[in-house]
Amino acid sequence: MHVLITGITGFIGVYLARRLTAAGHRVSGLSSDPITRLPGTRAEIFPRVDILDAAALEGVIARCDPQVIVHLAGLSHVGESWQRPGDYLRINFGGTRNVLRAAASRPVILASSSEVYGQVPEREQPIREDRPLDPRSPYAMTKACAEQLALDAGALVVRSFNAVGAGQARRFALPSFAAQLAAIEQGEREPVIKVGDLGPRRDFLHVDDVAGGYLALIERFAGGQVYNLASGQHFSIGEALERLRAISGVAAEVRRDESRVRPVDLPLLCGDPRRLRELGWRPERGLDDALRDLWQEARAATAQARRGVDGDGMAAA
Amino acid sequence: MHVLITGITGFIGVYLARRLTAAGHRVSGLSSDPITRLPGTRAEIFPRVDILDAAALEGVIARCDPQVIVHLAGLSHVGESWQRPGDYLRINFGGTRNVLRAAASRPVILASSSEVYGQVPEREQPIREDRPLDPRSPYAMTKACAEQLALDAGALVVRSFNAVGAGQARRFALPSFAAQLAAIEQGEREPVIKVGDLGPRRDFLHVDDVAGGYLALIERFAGGQVYNLASGQHFSIGEALERLRAISGVAAEVRRDESRVRPVDLPLLCGDPRRLRELGWRPERGLDDALRDLWQEARAATAQARRGVDGDGMAAA
Repeated sequence: MHVLITGITGFIGVYLARRLTAAGHRVSGLSSDPITRLPGTRAEIFPRVDILDAAALEGVIARCDPQVIVHLAGLSHVGESWQRPGDYLRINFGGTRNVLRAAASRPVILASSSEVYGQVPEREQPIREDRPLDPRSPYAMTKACAEQLALDAGALVVRSFNAVGAGQARRFALPSFAAQLAAIEQGEREPVIKVGDLGPRRDFLHVDDVAGGYLALIERFAGGQVYNLASGQHFSIGEALERLRAISGVAAEVRRDESRVRPVDLPLLCGDPRRLRELGWRPERGLDDALRDLWQEARAATAQARRGVDGDGMAAA
Repeated sequence: MHVLITGITGFIGVYLARRLTAAGHRVSGLSSDPITRLPGTRAEIFPRVDILDAAALEGVIARCDPQVIVHLAGLSHVGESWQRPGDYLRINFGGTRNVLRAAASRPVILASSSEVYGQVPEREQPIREDRPLDPRSPYAMTKACAEQLALDAGALVVRSFNAVGAGQARRFALPSFAAQLAAIEQGEREPVIKVGDLGPRRDFLHVDDVAGGYLALIERFAGGQVYNLASGQHFSIGEALERLRAISGVAAEVRRDESRVRPVDLPLLCGDPRRLRELGWRPERGLDDALRDLWQEARAATAQARRGVDGDGMAAA
């Protein structure tokens, strides 16, 4: 099958491109970055395509002529969405509108998020797909509205829970912890990890299992349907940090930094994975696997930075 | 012309139905209430129609067969939207989607709000319609997304600034102040007015001028266009309260009540009214007129309640 991925150079996009390549599919991708090659794939990449440029998007999709479009491009940081709601509106909602239009009648899979469920009582978790939405952040609101557009256009919606793994931007909690631990190990900072709220519990998935979930849905596309991409298990951010500290073997004090605390943080998000499991998908790697990958990446990036080579250019804090 | 108003029994709907009737138009309306008659109009009302019931909505609109639809139905309390974002999503965004679908190819006018502009520097006010949106509340986000749907469907979008006048629900600031002053005058409560943040400045319009703006747009419908419904002037909530106190002649201490303060309150929203003024509309009544109407209504309601007749059943706080 010929699959086009928007946001192919993003966190999930890279893993999905690799899974698709490995499964024998033809892969194309759009990226806002100037990147033209993705290691581990034979993906044809259209660089510097802005999904807000409807005409450019239509041109590329018409020329590329994919059989399925997986729309991953978007802004995905809940905390940041409180600062830049207009950008989240334009890119997540307006961008989805443009992709759906440019797709014409081609099947589209929209990456949505567990955040659309919002505040769900613990006794009603794990959360099923038919639960009414209760978006509690600008990010979640833009995704909830984009979902409706997508479903109306016959697209499939994936509500992904928390993907973890190497390649994730360091402003997300777990990659930030890994980077801090690596810097502490190298003696570059005092042995203190700055954290936001450690209490929220999340349903973590290895990013490669997330990519596997998308693969299953691409191969068994069902328009107008919604699927959780979840494990059905949950850990608090604090538990994940403890596991990461144990994996790293680095001793460090944990200190709360109010600037990392969000205006609203949902206490628990755990998804019912049964619908997607019925398609044969199941997670193959656990949280510890993902944390080990994060740790190795953080160590390598820190060592590289010490040798004078810049990592991904992102600030850890 | 035959005009159908959704939310005809709401604050703006009642005034618009009267203006339309007075201008010789035929008026129909949907309401979620069981109301079947509107005094001062000859409107045919379809009661108990839920805009979330797409099939019912389609049935009524097909049967009614209006020439223009003015979609006023929705939830409009910014503060409340922080508590019930899911309802705002379903009713404001999902409801608009249903109305646009049920409208088929009929012209639709969507009531949106100045809140979609969000945080705008003072030097860039009054705000023009082409300004990028920056929605800072769940309410504003649902309206911003609904606008995009509407414009894509060829509808006209009205960004109404702050309507004031008799009939407005008492959980909004100015009607609440009027009700509190009336209760103080009657000796029903101690001479203290509880207020939220008095600093934010708003572009207030008499609700009858708002209705007049809709009338102008109905008569000169231009699909795909956006119009501010604004005066171009602004007053702080505190200034409006002072004017209301002066009108009432009631002495009262002003006391801040933290439960009335919103998570985010925009410091200034003032609209550039030129686009709508070019159609010949201009406000005919000022803020003082609106406050006098509010005060008279509040006094009458308080007196009625003392005689054992319930007012509109809404709690003032």
